[in-house]
Amino acid sequence: MQFSEVDVKARKRAAKIMHEAFMKLIKKIRRGEEPELVLPKRTLANTVWDAEQRILRLGEGTLTRKFLDASEAKKFMKTVLMASIIYEALLNDEYPTIRDLYYRGKHTIVYRDHKGRRREENTWDEQKESDAVITDVEVYTGLLREEMLILSKEKGKVVGNMRIRSGGDVIDLSKMGHGAYAIEPTPDLIEFIDVDAEYVLVIEKDAVFQQLHRIKFWDRYKCLLVTSSGQPDRATRRFVRRLNEELGLPVYVLTDADPYGWYIYSVFRSGSITLSYESERLATPSAKFLGVSMSDIFEKNWLSPKERKNVIIKAKDTDIKRAKEMMRYQWFQSRKWKHEINLFLKKKSKLEIEALAVKGLKFLSEVYIPQKIQTGDWIE
Amino acid sequence: MQFSEVDVKARKRAAKIMHEAFMKLIKKIRRGEEPELVLPKRTLANTVWDAEQRILRLGEGTLTRKFLDASEAKKFMKTVLMASIIYEALLNDEYPTIRDLYYRGKHTIVYRDHKGRRREENTWDEQKESDAVITDVEVYTGLLREEMLILSKEKGKVVGNMRIRSGGDVIDLSKMGHGAYAIEPTPDLIEFIDVDAEYVLVIEKDAVFQQLHRIKFWDRYKCLLVTSSGQPDRATRRFVRRLNEELGLPVYVLTDADPYGWYIYSVFRSGSITLSYESERLATPSAKFLGVSMSDIFEKNWLSPKERKNVIIKAKDTDIKRAKEMMRYQWFQSRKWKHEINLFLKKKSKLEIEALAVKGLKFLSEVYIPQKIQTGDWIE
Repeated sequence: MQFSEVDVKARKRAAKIMHEAFMKLIKKIRRGEEPELVLPKRTLANTVWDAEQRILRLGEGTLTRKFLDASEAKKFMKTVLMASIIYEALLNDEYPTIRDLYYRGKHTIVYRDHKGRRREENTWDEQKESDAVITDVEVYTGLLREEMLILSKEKGKVVGNMRIRSGGDVIDLSKMGHGAYAIEPTPDLIEFIDVDAEYVLVIEKDAVFQQLHRIKFWDRYKCLLVTSSGQPDRATRRFVRRLNEELGLPVYVLTDADPYGWYIYSVFRSGSITLSYESERLATPSAKFLGVSMSDIFEKNWLSPKERKNVIIKAKDTDIKRAKEMMRYQWFQSRKWKHEINLFLKKKSKLEIEALAVKGLKFLSEVYIPQKIQTGDWIE
Repeated sequence: MQFSEVDVKARKRAAKIMHEAFMKLIKKIRRGEEPELVLPKRTLANTVWDAEQRILRLGEGTLTRKFLDASEAKKFMKTVLMASIIYEALLNDEYPTIRDLYYRGKHTIVYRDHKGRRREENTWDEQKESDAVITDVEVYTGLLREEMLILSKEKGKVVGNMRIRSGGDVIDLSKMGHGAYAIEPTPDLIEFIDVDAEYVLVIEKDAVFQQLHRIKFWDRYKCLLVTSSGQPDRATRRFVRRLNEELGLPVYVLTDADPYGWYIYSVFRSGSITLSYESERLATPSAKFLGVSMSDIFEKNWLSPKERKNVIIKAKDTDIKRAKEMMRYQWFQSRKWKHEINLFLKKKSKLEIEALAVKGLKFLSEVYIPQKIQTGDWIE
């Protein structure tokens, strides 16, 4: 079996970093010292809003997981077990998913306690336990799971005037026909060969992406079209971040006009609060929210009062609740964002992007998006 | 704007068929006759199991929707309104989604009743109403919505030794790098150029597809890999059907071992009961269920008793309920399927495909799938 050169290189690198990280532990044990792992703390209290980088990241706080502490021994062993499974997969040219790792490590340990009684203990029961341990290995080694060649479901797609190299193949993203290129789960291994685009348009909805692609919007307006198909996965976020960081392309996010759409933007923009350790690599702090904004609906003349009445939707309680939560996000403290959220809470209405079809089916692609970008009408 | 030749042709064809279908109505009106539409009935009672073709299809029953009947006038008008929006989109080179069509047609009609009172009536309120009307237009004209260039969200992906032509581009599905080709929403417009594969392996789970693709399973075993990413959409089903019908490739479906997995197989195999009008075009009656089967778990030696105990999951009430429903499906009446369902109801346990990782991460690709195919160990 011939693996692509980038995979071989990525494996070697990850195996080396893991080896070095755990050799520290092994040396401790060899010296007869107490086995322990020192990890960055992944708590809310240790999550810092870096105003300059405009990103959430882990603070300086660490925790020490000791083997010879009855309350921590199991967690210690779980972390080491997971690390050894991942390391073995790297050496064996395997590509596990996080669910594989859960099953691979799930077993019952039978032992006798200090009174000689037979006891049983499961390594883990639920996948959320093994997932947390994978995250421990990530923060301990500083390797994202993708760098350890752990694969996952991937929903992101891209088209545009750009060529990339992936797994030894050169792929022309402007020659995908009516289909699209489905982004790989390890987007750091993609090489950007050449690109003729001025910005990246990220679209929440796959069906809207299909429409814009079908009329070759990317060709007419010199952009790369990306869809996250709803809530973005890690690979799509990393891919967009790389387009922004390495190619210097501005990123615009187009979603429904509702708190769920804002949340999708927020995940691209800053990452999720619970996984701040990854934001430094996955988030695109300069991403701009292009719309549809509440002010577009209620304060501008895109829609006539009659059209508006026809297509707005009453907000649900969960929308209101989510909006109130988002008012507290550090990156929603700008004047414009506060205005948006307040306008939503006042009107208690939302709107789907497809509702713009009430203005005709070409309105979105020929009027709304180009005008918004041309006039700089976005929210950061 | 230059549209691809296949789209121009598809538009012309659909517009012509729609024009002919509705000219019948217009002629009636011009002759001073009562306007009415005659449609195939889309009821369960008019759904026939065609044992020879092994497919569900609509029977001979029709219904007549009359304009001059107070109880049917609104339905009649909705159907004609939707047809006119779709027809207009065809003439205007547009690519609506079903949600666009909902918004495009949603409005309030103000009128005065026979007593001169001002009345209001909405064309439709919910999308399910407008979707039902789109289906009416489909069965009335005999055109699938994809043939009318109505686009939709698309989750299916494919890789393998095959070249296709789509929208004027030639795409080599063996040169997708670590990514994949995302199937277009109008798969009838794909042209198969050349193919070097012996079968199609359809995988429920995207992450498992990623794994098999990454080790170039399709190259080693000369197959095309397709994922539906869960419940298959129409385009993925149509694409698989075409691979089977036009290229003569056998289709194997690999899912989790649970009634949800069977259901996914069932949709590929026979379509859904509520949408039997589409099965004739979208279903692949000869598709085989490769696994994971209940007999693989409980009656064969793939897993040791200890491994099995570690990885099986207790079935939920909804699983049991679904299994009991599926016992009544006409295409689950074979001896093998009855045995599967009964075994599940007896054991009340299910298993995820990733659970096979308990045998090592290469077990699925190097042992399980090849052996199952080689020994013909599937269920039809």
